[in-house]
Amino acid sequence: MSHAPLPDLILEPLVRAALMEDLGTYGDVTTRAVIPAGTTYQARLNARQAGVVSGMQIARIAFHLVDAGLKVNTLKTDGDAVAPGDTLMTIEGAAASILSGERVALNFAGRLSGIATLTASFVAETKGTATRVTCTRKTTPGLRIVEKQAVVHGGGFNHRYSLSDAILIKDNHIAAAGGVRAVLEAAKASASHMMKVEIEVDRLDQLEEVLAVGGADVVLLDNMDTDTLRQAVALCRGRIVTEASGNMTLPRIAEVAATGVDYISSGALTHSAQTLDLGLDF
Amino acid sequence: MSHAPLPDLILEPLVRAALMEDLGTYGDVTTRAVIPAGTTYQARLNARQAGVVSGMQIARIAFHLVDAGLKVNTLKTDGDAVAPGDTLMTIEGAAASILSGERVALNFAGRLSGIATLTASFVAETKGTATRVTCTRKTTPGLRIVEKQAVVHGGGFNHRYSLSDAILIKDNHIAAAGGVRAVLEAAKASASHMMKVEIEVDRLDQLEEVLAVGGADVVLLDNMDTDTLRQAVALCRGRIVTEASGNMTLPRIAEVAATGVDYISSGALTHSAQTLDLGLDF
Amino acid sequence: MSHAPLPDLILEPLVRAALMEDLGTYGDVTTRAVIPAGTTYQARLNARQAGVVSGMQIARIAFHLVDAGLKVNTLKTDGDAVAPGDTLMTIEGAAASILSGERVALNFAGRLSGIATLTASFVAETKGTATRVTCTRKTTPGLRIVEKQAVVHGGGFNHRYSLSDAILIKDNHIAAAGGVRAVLEAAKASASHMMKVEIEVDRLDQLEEVLAVGGADVVLLDNMDTDTLRQAVALCRGRIVTEASGNMTLPRIAEVAATGVDYISSGALTHSAQTLDLGLDF
Amino acid sequence: MSHAPLPDLILEPLVRAALMEDLGTYGDVTTRAVIPAGTTYQARLNARQAGVVSGMQIARIAFHLVDAGLKVNTLKTDGDAVAPGDTLMTIEGAAASILSGERVALNFAGRLSGIATLTASFVAETKGTATRVTCTRKTTPGLRIVEKQAVVHGGGFNHRYSLSDAILIKDNHIAAAGGVRAVLEAAKASASHMMKVEIEVDRLDQLEEVLAVGGADVVLLDNMDTDTLRQAVALCRGRIVTEASGNMTLPRIAEVAATGVDYISSGALTHSAQTLDLGLDF
Amino acid sequence: MSHAPLPDLILEPLVRAALMEDLGTYGDVTTRAVIPAGTTYQARLNARQAGVVSGMQIARIAFHLVDAGLKVNTLKTDGDAVAPGDTLMTIEGAAASILSGERVALNFAGRLSGIATLTASFVAETKGTATRVTCTRKTTPGLRIVEKQAVVHGGGFNHRYSLSDAILIKDNHIAAAGGVRAVLEAAKASASHMMKVEIEVDRLDQLEEVLAVGGADVVLLDNMDTDTLRQAVALCRGRIVTEASGNMTLPRIAEVAATGVDYISSGALTHSAQTLDLGLDF
Amino acid sequence: MSHAPLPDLILEPLVRAALMEDLGTYGDVTTRAVIPAGTTYQARLNARQAGVVSGMQIARIAFHLVDAGLKVNTLKTDGDAVAPGDTLMTIEGAAASILSGERVALNFAGRLSGIATLTASFVAETKGTATRVTCTRKTTPGLRIVEKQAVVHGGGFNHRYSLSDAILIKDNHIAAAGGVRAVLEAAKASASHMMKVEIEVDRLDQLEEVLAVGGADVVLLDNMDTDTLRQAVALCRGRIVTEASGNMTLPRIAEVAATGVDYISSGALTHSAQTLDLGLDF
Repeated sequence: MSHAPLPDLILEPLVRAALMEDLGTYGDVTTRAVIPAGTTYQARLNARQAGVVSGMQIARIAFHLVDAGLKVNTLKTDGDAVAPGDTLMTIEGAAASILSGERVALNFAGRLSGIATLTASFVAETKGTATRVTCTRKTTPGLRIVEKQAVVHGGGFNHRYSLSDAILIKDNHIAAAGGVRAVLEAAKASASHMMKVEIEVDRLDQLEEVLAVGGADVVLLDNMDTDTLRQAVALCRGRIVTEASGNMTLPRIAEVAATGVDYISSGALTHSAQTLDLGLDF
Repeated sequence: MSHAPLPDLILEPLVRAALMEDLGTYGDVTTRAVIPAGTTYQARLNARQAGVVSGMQIARIAFHLVDAGLKVNTLKTDGDAVAPGDTLMTIEGAAASILSGERVALNFAGRLSGIATLTASFVAETKGTATRVTCTRKTTPGLRIVEKQAVVHGGGFNHRYSLSDAILIKDNHIAAAGGVRAVLEAAKASASHMMKVEIEVDRLDQLEEVLAVGGADVVLLDNMDTDTLRQAVALCRGRIVTEASGNMTLPRIAEVAATGVDYISSGALTHSAQTLDLGLDF
Repeated sequence: MSHAPLPDLILEPLVRAALMEDLGTYGDVTTRAVIPAGTTYQARLNARQAGVVSGMQIARIAFHLVDAGLKVNTLKTDGDAVAPGDTLMTIEGAAASILSGERVALNFAGRLSGIATLTASFVAETKGTATRVTCTRKTTPGLRIVEKQAVVHGGGFNHRYSLSDAILIKDNHIAAAGGVRAVLEAAKASASHMMKVEIEVDRLDQLEEVLAVGGADVVLLDNMDTDTLRQAVALCRGRIVTEASGNMTLPRIAEVAATGVDYISSGALTHSAQTLDLGLDF
Repeated sequence: MSHAPLPDLILEPLVRAALMEDLGTYGDVTTRAVIPAGTTYQARLNARQAGVVSGMQIARIAFHLVDAGLKVNTLKTDGDAVAPGDTLMTIEGAAASILSGERVALNFAGRLSGIATLTASFVAETKGTATRVTCTRKTTPGLRIVEKQAVVHGGGFNHRYSLSDAILIKDNHIAAAGGVRAVLEAAKASASHMMKVEIEVDRLDQLEEVLAVGGADVVLLDNMDTDTLRQAVALCRGRIVTEASGNMTLPRIAEVAATGVDYISSGALTHSAQTLDLGLDF
Repeated sequence: MSHAPLPDLILEPLVRAALMEDLGTYGDVTTRAVIPAGTTYQARLNARQAGVVSGMQIARIAFHLVDAGLKVNTLKTDGDAVAPGDTLMTIEGAAASILSGERVALNFAGRLSGIATLTASFVAETKGTATRVTCTRKTTPGLRIVEKQAVVHGGGFNHRYSLSDAILIKDNHIAAAGGVRAVLEAAKASASHMMKVEIEVDRLDQLEEVLAVGGADVVLLDNMDTDTLRQAVALCRGRIVTEASGNMTLPRIAEVAATGVDYISSGALTHSAQTLDLGLDF
Repeated sequence: MSHAPLPDLILEPLVRAALMEDLGTYGDVTTRAVIPAGTTYQARLNARQAGVVSGMQIARIAFHLVDAGLKVNTLKTDGDAVAPGDTLMTIEGAAASILSGERVALNFAGRLSGIATLTASFVAETKGTATRVTCTRKTTPGLRIVEKQAVVHGGGFNHRYSLSDAILIKDNHIAAAGGVRAVLEAAKASASHMMKVEIEVDRLDQLEEVLAVGGADVVLLDNMDTDTLRQAVALCRGRIVTEASGNMTLPRIAEVAATGVDYISSGALTHSAQTLDLGLDF
């Protein structure tokens, strides 16, 4: 996926909503009560941990929504690796404005940089292979777009965005449709040329049926041990794209990538990343 | 805080937005393509880990927004402790509807139950003391209301909701206002009788100045070691409410509670909780 | 594509906005002024032309948003062929409610049935071939979801929904990226396994370069005459999916389909369909 | 109606919604993947057909919403006649921004210019008379404001905007209210001095009753042949404003205008206009 | 104007927004904390002053939005006269729900009944004449629709709703356009048959010019003393509708109505009405 | 409370909504029809009455939302006292823009300045005492934030913003919870350290029970005569903050303040203030 930024237009409503949530009805009552009018700050957004940053575009949008007069200078862009102590962004201007935007900028950037950093650690384990790392739909409600972008900033790839983007056939679908052949035929009849079809299997005999019937672009190899996965990948080579899923923990990634699987997917990238420690210094 | 539920009216827009995000433009194209019309399911939302649940009200709203005809039966309410294998909720009706709401219900309930569970583990460490556990504003953008509720479901208490709810004076404010006396006088001049004033100190001499000046309802004792905290609490007893903050990790909670501090606050409750493993079984 | 209905949840905001537009500030002032309280109607939504209907789900939602007490009976579902005089839907209840929802229901259903009907006439021309008919992004701003559904109701398929769904490389992209090889490599590096890549060519030598480089799932054969198209399709068979585009008017469809092309795309399906004549009779 | 532009404030939400629809979640993934950063374009919006343009203000807003840094120069304003090859607007700046706004600008401008052009052809038929051409409420859901403006750009006039603007009594209303006298009395009792009252008749005896009772500002002469219409207009002269409606096709307009009728209304202006062919050239 | 109710669809967003404003983030924390689950109330909405009620439809919507299970019985409908002690509505069901909706229902109903009551007192002064009372655009931002309805409930009529409904030419317009003739010609050229034209004059010679030029439907006689007004009305009779405006205080209404003027308009109806005292009793 | 301005971000949606309400669909049709293009004005917003202004920030936002090119110069800021004839703001630029924003700016500023002025008259009566004046939740639906700000501009203080900000126990709550002790214990168990607890009493024996039980921060002394109030305040001194409420009319304020009560609250500040007369002169 590309690191090219999204149009601000797409991110602005999300950032605006987060600011409204944090400002509440009266705005920052502390700052309004005690900071003398005219106070200005030079603030630096600093990394306190090593990692890969995401959320710099959002932090800039947040400070500018609070006060278009703030001077924001982005030193690290989304996808950059950072070391503890690195300054990611400087913000200069009215103290009240900087304090009002601080928490929202940090809440986004800490969380998204955590996702980018965890993704990068998965990607590092695939080094020397062609295997790609991809996320799932196990994202935070309302933040899918920025969490999916954070995966890309960490070097990963995005699975389908929503239920509407691609056909992904799971066990329930196979059962309800009356078997692999029936379900794939229904999928082919429905999917246009611009929509991918993926089907989940958890045994080699299921995989053989899928390959025999045809009509899927991708097969999701679910919860297989590494040996079975290796056999499955061998069966698929040149015929269908492969994705390994289920229990894809960091210590296992190198071994799984060595099977030659095309994609490794992990919900943990978005639902279990730890916040990267960032802070605003004045 | 009370476990009494919020009016659905408050939660509905959030759940609706999450459903729109996950359904995308065409809805669940897989289900639409392959599930025969008229297929019905009896689904159970089951715990796969022990913990404290939160998000049951939201899950019910989610399934009913997708299809008002689904029959949802809530067996565990928000705040209940659950064991692996416990059924939290049953959902009966159109298969397409249940599949369309599944991921949103799980994404909310897994995350929120994770927060409730982590909070409960902090609260367990305060047993036998009067110390209360409280969260911060380090919440997920857009999900503050449900994350704050999840803290309550876990037995914790809520700090101020937004920048607008209470005055919380930090070091920058003190510096900009010209010292502790000046800042507290500005706060008193501004705060009405319905707004609390809290001030952060990190040394005992600062605390003594705060107590001498008066005008604060709560003092935030920041990043103190346990001995200093004990002295601080002794100074404050009967004069001001105390809150310990900074590096309040789970292993330290019992020791900190033993100082007699009134509140222990931790951003980790919301920014570092692990998702509780829940699943939908058909 | 499937004729299975979308969840009402997706369509409701669109229908609600249209009703607010037509009701204005005071609602239907004529009806409010002159229709005696308690007046009820039995209305029939009738076809005055032959065609394929689309918008029946929307019409039902519209009447129910105006008045949940209206009794709506859908006799023809989206995708059904109708003859002049056929009754598509009956609506019974408060006259004021039926009159208030009438124009919105008709404006949607007339326009969408026009699209379904035009699509069906294109599809009829492909009879006996495997060629599919597909629309473009030349849709009415704000109505894309319902116009794309109408194409499906007419027997067509949907091209990518938005700029975000798939990579579609046009001449400008090739030029800016520095040629076919460079552009396809950039696309492959960026696209995940769930995203299709299509590239536009308008000459056979370009097509040969595309096939040589690889990495595209679909080739858009733009503005070719039928002979050239036939050669192009022959080159592509078994290697890449083909789409014919540009000047795909109704009289030419049968001839183009006879080339064996996989898809014929036409912006006219959505931007030039004539409204199907429907009316409400009391 | 005036050609003076609307405040951008009114149009922006509509244009923003259309951009979000077309950009989707990830924006223009093709451009993001393959266009090198820093690529700039000089683009021209050109007419490929003769007509009257509408949507230039919207196109400008669209490009500026995507990227406030684009330099947009409007050469033809809404309401101007254009010839094939005329450049209507130039847009200079970031290639990614221009490509991202292109389809929305064209979808609006093509459709609205089609309406302005069709309206102008109706208006041309009334030349030498005082008859005015007016549209109806048969507009595209969600686009009424811009379609009504397009009618004005073509030289036409607007009928009531919504059900809330004026009283328009049709046959159902007359029947329900108990006849012409009763319905007009109810209307007069309800309408203030700032609200017009119009009543529909389709026979001369009905018209005479309307004139005898009084209280209407406008009479809608529905589905009359030209001779009947001429008699009706003669009856009304100096007493009430006249509007001819029903089957007002282009070939009939000159003849109808020659009757001296004040207004000719046609739903076709908005529901059956063909898109004007416009394109962006780089 | 008609007392027929608006569709709930139009009022719901306004009521929902007011409820969200009053419920805040956590809802009614008092009720949640201290009212035992299962507590139910039988509440009565009572008048504590005589007046004309408005806002009953809104109160019902408010209680039902909070809790669809509340049993609301409307005893007085909008436009009814009430005496102190009269019960306007009964509400039965969950205590928490009734308490949560109480303030919003009262804030709307008190304010709107105040407007209806003040309007009714103006209308009473016109008794025995054909003069009608009408409001202006001096309404509370965001509440125009319900305040205009309240005027109707009080027996008054509505002036134009917004700047978009009708042409109302004031002194600035006349000056900028270059005089009465020029401005009326511009208005006639622009206004369609469904849009009224009104022009403001404050002297008899201006009025004579207006009548001589023609083209206005209504003349606004601004800030005239009663004698001048009487002369103006005499000049206008049978030629143009008259509206008296400016300093139209309650004590003056009878005298002004006696001049035979068609409409008396007053901004005070909406901007200076006193809240009618209503209360909820349990 | 502080006079420091809110971030524009918080006020903009409210002002935008009010502008859309007043502009309607077509904007200011009069101005569009009759004001020649290019006409410019120099307008002054003038006070026609003495008072305290509020709404200057809003007026500036309104004119800038209509036209970012208008030059707005604020001469009096929110909270300033003004005399008749004082110019509060000058606005220069396109006549059409100024006319389009005029009514919204005046409707806000007139109403809010009325509230600030009435509040200031209450505050003047407390001169020489430490008593503060505070408002209630009896605000206009949708305008609470700006009305509460206006109270501050007049020198008053804000009570809780919404039901969610603080616990305020009234007679119904006491009855439902089973008495003063039970209700205060429930409140203490639920309220965190950042949430105030207030309890209403209307007799001295109730007050004594409240003081004996403890746990409330504030006591609301409701509907007491001045003698009883004086005794109540004496009982509370040094133990609890006091608020006098109920029938707090302007003539009574000095006498009530003389009792030494901490706060006097009055719903009249927001629900019964008279609009301050402001006007735009050209």
